[in-house]
Amino acid sequence: MSVIADVPFSAAGAIAEDDRDAFAPEDAPPALPLSLSRHLPLVEDALRWALPPSSSPLGKMCAYHLGWASPEGEPTAGGGGKLFRAGLAVWACEACGGEPDWAVPAAAAVELVHNFTLVHDDIQDGDTTRRHRPTVWAVWGEAQGINAGDGLFATAYLALLAPGPRADRRMRAARALSQAVLEVIEGQSLDLALEGRPDTPRATYVRLITAKTGALLGACLEMGAILAGASTRTVTKLRNAGRLLGETFQIRDDWLGSFGDPDRTGKGRTSDLARRKLTYPVVSAFSRASYAEQRRLCQLYAEPAAEDGEELIRDILASLGEPDGTAVAAAQTCKAAMSAVASSGLDARWVEDFAAIARFVAHRTG
Amino acid sequence: MSVIADVPFSAAGAIAEDDRDAFAPEDAPPALPLSLSRHLPLVEDALRWALPPSSSPLGKMCAYHLGWASPEGEPTAGGGGKLFRAGLAVWACEACGGEPDWAVPAAAAVELVHNFTLVHDDIQDGDTTRRHRPTVWAVWGEAQGINAGDGLFATAYLALLAPGPRADRRMRAARALSQAVLEVIEGQSLDLALEGRPDTPRATYVRLITAKTGALLGACLEMGAILAGASTRTVTKLRNAGRLLGETFQIRDDWLGSFGDPDRTGKGRTSDLARRKLTYPVVSAFSRASYAEQRRLCQLYAEPAAEDGEELIRDILASLGEPDGTAVAAAQTCKAAMSAVASSGLDARWVEDFAAIARFVAHRTG
Repeated sequence: MSVIADVPFSAAGAIAEDDRDAFAPEDAPPALPLSLSRHLPLVEDALRWALPPSSSPLGKMCAYHLGWASPEGEPTAGGGGKLFRAGLAVWACEACGGEPDWAVPAAAAVELVHNFTLVHDDIQDGDTTRRHRPTVWAVWGEAQGINAGDGLFATAYLALLAPGPRADRRMRAARALSQAVLEVIEGQSLDLALEGRPDTPRATYVRLITAKTGALLGACLEMGAILAGASTRTVTKLRNAGRLLGETFQIRDDWLGSFGDPDRTGKGRTSDLARRKLTYPVVSAFSRASYAEQRRLCQLYAEPAAEDGEELIRDILASLGEPDGTAVAAAQTCKAAMSAVASSGLDARWVEDFAAIARFVAHRTG
Repeated sequence: MSVIADVPFSAAGAIAEDDRDAFAPEDAPPALPLSLSRHLPLVEDALRWALPPSSSPLGKMCAYHLGWASPEGEPTAGGGGKLFRAGLAVWACEACGGEPDWAVPAAAAVELVHNFTLVHDDIQDGDTTRRHRPTVWAVWGEAQGINAGDGLFATAYLALLAPGPRADRRMRAARALSQAVLEVIEGQSLDLALEGRPDTPRATYVRLITAKTGALLGACLEMGAILAGASTRTVTKLRNAGRLLGETFQIRDDWLGSFGDPDRTGKGRTSDLARRKLTYPVVSAFSRASYAEQRRLCQLYAEPAAEDGEELIRDILASLGEPDGTAVAAAQTCKAAMSAVASSGLDARWVEDFAAIARFVAHRTG
């Protein structure tokens, strides 16, 4: 369950003093802690080992989506994304006293699952650009795009269920991952059902993003803890912290999609407002809007092609305290995530470290 | 690897005497052995338990696809399909000395995986009818159809990886299933790449159907044997038998799609020939066709809307010994599957029983 659904919401005009540090200056966003990335080469190796060979049509699409290859299969520099979810799984394993490499199968699996959902989302949303490149379906068509996503999903289990040590823990982790994936898909299904509905109650929207984004981040921390052999209490606390971190992640994502710099987000130049996407700023502003403003928002969402529609929505949101209201919500959820970790039984240095991760998530610029 | 790719092909005019029993009279098709269906109520219970609640949009789509509910979520009589794959998994477990219920998690999982591939296939192929009802995407749209398939896939792992006895065997089974699924998707991807290409070499087409259909039937027998604790040799032999059975299944499916009675197959009234699908009869006839006939077939496949195209293709196929050539191929593959089981170390009564299953597959009418 979400915390912000239960916390009385302070409009941007009345931000509590201790939430003011939510607003990091845009020119100095917090950096991703090193603890989240130092073991990622291990995960990259595991990913490359797990995927189908790039000589097959399926392997070619997967390698392209991950940024490792051109559509023709030529290797490209960089790519691979930030592997943020993989980093979380390894982090949780270390924080719970495990060796980093124990978490690598889960870390690879969660990245594969995340990328499977991205490939399918792009088809469902009709998005033609991701990470500054054409999406898989935009290159190979929808039918092959569905296959690419399915292939990444199946590969995730191959990575996690391979023969080797700690099989019982990996099996528990695979179950946690499956449960999370089902929740992600339920969230995606709900998201489609609520398309173009700015009158969605905020509590419903929070439930949606907890499923769509929180569940998988929860599984990252949960799996890391399971693989380290942590107690049930610690596993549960870290799972909850991950879910709240995911909620924060999505609220910040919504902020970036509406008010961020498209050159840094890699999401294409059309804002979420122009595309009438259901986002936290809209749902939250709607809950504070007058009846007339609510009607106007519903009208503007019903006519996505209306001229100046985006600017009109932006004006209404501004009059209702956005984008600051959304930044406050991100900060509040971020703090709830930190509290969950603080009570999980981890050592103080790991609690501190998680706080740095959570701050990064709440304030990132791309 | 396929056997028929290595076996010299006898044209229909020169069918070996011992292949003549391949032609079962159409008015008395062999029945599905009872051993394949007597434990299916256990599997149905497991499926109902595993699926998301039908109150959720995702659960509603899944229940509809499985034939348990109307699009509005009202329970319907019957449905659920034949659960043929589930039956194979339970059969293999029993045949290897296990209790039938040991295989139920794998049986439920393989049915969920099979149905996930059907839901996505229907989107990819643009098929609007399955089992005499509108397909999921035809009711809810493509985006939600993708979710329904993804949800069935994730649920398969929940069924297989639940806490309980024989966890290590179930984990091995889950790995076998993942490997098979990846092969199914690779097959589907190859299938799309070869669309409209009657000049596909027969060996390539056999590789395609072994991946697309054989891999999952192989996993059924493999998982059943693993869950019974069978030896590696028996597991491998049964896996191979399942792959050959799947090849037989698909060749017969191709026969039915081109020459069967659409009222009995539930595939809609448009034949595979009218839709210019790549099928065994076409690929096989092509390999025996004269240069002029090959050119004509390629032309007809390049113009799917050509008037009388279906009849012209049918004439060419008939002149090249179809549909009998395809029936012989099904019978040969069927026999290879029986041989694999005969050398697997199973008791004679189970070898006999498998022969009855294989004969059913090679001669079924719907």
